[in-house]
Amino acid sequence: MNAYMVFYILGQVLRLEGVFMLLPALTGLIYHEEQGWIFLIMAASLFILGYMLSFRRPKDTTFYLKEGCVITALSWVFMSFFGALPFFISGEIPSLLDAFFETVSGFTTTGASILHDPEVLCHATQFWRCFTHWIGGMGVLVFLLAIIPMSGGSNINLMRAESPGPSVGKLVPKMRTTAALLYLIYFFLTSLEVLFLICGKMPLFDSICTSFATAGTGGFGVYKDSLASQTPYIQWVATIFMLLFGVNFNFYFFLLYRHIRKALKMTEIRAYFAVVFMSTAIITINIYHQIQNISVAIRHAGFQVASIITTTGFASANFDDWPEPSRVILVILMFIGACAGSTGGGIKVSRFMILIRSIKKELKSYVYPKSVSKITMDGSPVEHEIVRSVNVYFITFFLIFTASVFIVSFDNKGLITSFTAVAATINNIGPGLELAGPTQNYASFSTAAKFTMIFDMLAGRLELFPMLMLFNPKLYVTKPLISRKAK
Amino acid sequence: MNAYMVFYILGQVLRLEGVFMLLPALTGLIYHEEQGWIFLIMAASLFILGYMLSFRRPKDTTFYLKEGCVITALSWVFMSFFGALPFFISGEIPSLLDAFFETVSGFTTTGASILHDPEVLCHATQFWRCFTHWIGGMGVLVFLLAIIPMSGGSNINLMRAESPGPSVGKLVPKMRTTAALLYLIYFFLTSLEVLFLICGKMPLFDSICTSFATAGTGGFGVYKDSLASQTPYIQWVATIFMLLFGVNFNFYFFLLYRHIRKALKMTEIRAYFAVVFMSTAIITINIYHQIQNISVAIRHAGFQVASIITTTGFASANFDDWPEPSRVILVILMFIGACAGSTGGGIKVSRFMILIRSIKKELKSYVYPKSVSKITMDGSPVEHEIVRSVNVYFITFFLIFTASVFIVSFDNKGLITSFTAVAATINNIGPGLELAGPTQNYASFSTAAKFTMIFDMLAGRLELFPMLMLFNPKLYVTKPLISRKAK
Repeated sequence: MNAYMVFYILGQVLRLEGVFMLLPALTGLIYHEEQGWIFLIMAASLFILGYMLSFRRPKDTTFYLKEGCVITALSWVFMSFFGALPFFISGEIPSLLDAFFETVSGFTTTGASILHDPEVLCHATQFWRCFTHWIGGMGVLVFLLAIIPMSGGSNINLMRAESPGPSVGKLVPKMRTTAALLYLIYFFLTSLEVLFLICGKMPLFDSICTSFATAGTGGFGVYKDSLASQTPYIQWVATIFMLLFGVNFNFYFFLLYRHIRKALKMTEIRAYFAVVFMSTAIITINIYHQIQNISVAIRHAGFQVASIITTTGFASANFDDWPEPSRVILVILMFIGACAGSTGGGIKVSRFMILIRSIKKELKSYVYPKSVSKITMDGSPVEHEIVRSVNVYFITFFLIFTASVFIVSFDNKGLITSFTAVAATINNIGPGLELAGPTQNYASFSTAAKFTMIFDMLAGRLELFPMLMLFNPKLYVTKPLISRKAK
Repeated sequence: MNAYMVFYILGQVLRLEGVFMLLPALTGLIYHEEQGWIFLIMAASLFILGYMLSFRRPKDTTFYLKEGCVITALSWVFMSFFGALPFFISGEIPSLLDAFFETVSGFTTTGASILHDPEVLCHATQFWRCFTHWIGGMGVLVFLLAIIPMSGGSNINLMRAESPGPSVGKLVPKMRTTAALLYLIYFFLTSLEVLFLICGKMPLFDSICTSFATAGTGGFGVYKDSLASQTPYIQWVATIFMLLFGVNFNFYFFLLYRHIRKALKMTEIRAYFAVVFMSTAIITINIYHQIQNISVAIRHAGFQVASIITTTGFASANFDDWPEPSRVILVILMFIGACAGSTGGGIKVSRFMILIRSIKKELKSYVYPKSVSKITMDGSPVEHEIVRSVNVYFITFFLIFTASVFIVSFDNKGLITSFTAVAATINNIGPGLELAGPTQNYASFSTAAKFTMIFDMLAGRLELFPMLMLFNPKLYVTKPLISRKAK
């Protein structure tokens, strides 16, 4: 393994985090808050630490998928650890584990909080908490790729390890331009939401934080009741932007390059909106007798569906009180998740499409045993390798999920709480049902359960394998064996 | 599609069911019960109906997997329908839907009952109820294969459609001998259990019924509290025999042919017992503080683990009262299920082994991207086709499962009830948790929920695809298309 390169990039990531921390420091300055100094000192420390780690550029800058995975996994763990320190040092989150949980939840865009009431946080901390969503949504390594020139084709392995979805394509031949374009679209859409929210008379600071949380499909709110007490206008704006950030970013890329027809033909996006509309319709009917007002029912159903399928986790109503079929739909949506190549989590719509198509193929093979058919997506055949890795992904996902539920069950909080708490963390949503529901928080879970969910959040965000790789003993065998076998 | 052959075999199955019904008729005679006459008349009617359907042997007796699936699915549906009539006609189960539910539950060896108390049934009905487990356990078409000579290699397609597990091998070159051998082992083990139970002072009739239910890994009890009030000796006998019937029957076949070493090396069986011992150990520790007696705790833990992993569904204690980690383990065991080629249900140990090995292979490919490795089982490589179909099976299973939970959730009985009721029926176990728990029954579910669970029980027993085939529109297209494409 090219360990030099691992440390080099890790150093770059920490330097970048230092730069990011200047923003909450600035926020502290604006609002005359002492906590701003903590962020400034942290920023300086991270910058120095990162500089030391990446002092000398390694001679051999090539690396493979395994290094890509290790770099990504370690970057996210360290980034979360250092990102947690300001919460802890300022005393706003007195437990280091809780601060770590909160930061992992932020970067992984989960939005599961251990805070009873986020309104007690100062502006600087509030800003940093929501900003972690924005950084994590598109990915810190993607950001790095956009700003740092890296030679060779190795950097695709970073993108593959950090980006969500079954396959990663370069949008344009140059990786760096692809990464920059993605962040450009991301920045533009976020700014647009800020504008719309300000038009709805939300204060500027709250608009920025809310937009960060929407853009990253994170879900940390600035208010205690998420968006429940906001105006219908603001709830609708959030609904629409959540859905927009759950769309595969290739769609915007096609629009940008005026491939309108190509954009509109993307089957994943059609399926995604089909699921959204169907779920909203069923839930609207199902909750109507509780709410007795059709427009309110549509708004809450649409908001919650958008919030859960994009794995944002905002709440406009306490959906834990909804009738059972609606809750079942929301739990199903937790697992489906958003489109690949979006900032959302979950298993991803395109994976499900590939899975469903492979079932159809199997059934067809029963009737026409000798027919040779390939699964297709958007008109072109899906590589056998991708179908296989989607299958393996699905199975790995359920095994990690099951093991996590087992560990969390020792907290004896009830099966629904254990099940949905794990579902809400591994799919990077935030709120689950019952004791992990939208009006509750994760503070009361045991240390073991919190560590399990921290692992799940990271595994869910990084699409399982980078995190599992850290525990792969084959990774740590001596060099000769690797080079002999790998070549 | 060779429709003549479908009707021909369907006729044979109904004739066979008629013959089987002579046994409860005889029971009625012995105990001087009027219900015996109902079984006698039903037997005669089925024999005549079956004779009419299979009056003329079709000229073309070859058929393919699709016909194998259709024959199997239809056989099981009709067999259950006619098997339900005695319950309904005698008035012992006043609702036809409930009688159908009970019979499907019997044949599919689920053991989910709509009866509050089975002790009120007369002996003839009691016998028939448990006998359906015995018939369904090994499969009615396998029985047919054992007694009726069929030319050509087509009959392997019946065996493939009806037998549980990812792959079906002939044990001996002749299909008929394989089927006969399987039933021979089955009959021998069942008789052995009867003997052991009688030694434990259980009445003969109860011993026979209990053995039927154990052998088929069904779980219908003759007593209201299942086996909870029986002696420890009887509970241990049941535990051991449940585990024995959950073993891949190839094991007994190897023993019979004195391939002892080959038998002991079967990895699936080793994994199966490893899971049983580990789960028993964890549950014992977990329930010890409730029970305060180590030998009782081991007995109940072992009994319940054996009952759930083999998908029998007997209960020696109300495990719904156990602490959460124990209940989570039992729910996990519901999905794991018994060995392939046993009478048990669930997803099967060997499928999980193949799945876990494909994850290992995936992780390995991250480290050594160019290595080409195959998944192996018992020393020989697993065909790519089988790995693929196991993957598809797993995914199909979860989609059917999810859709079923959604439908059942309209009953508003609570998420745990809906979830475990579906888990307990699709995996052919019987009791779930809460309102579907071991002290409850399925009578109170709605018609839609009951139909869903009837489908799930059949789909689970027949390994999904035969039942799905019935809904495959490609099956019903006109003949030219099929022959053109198939050839």
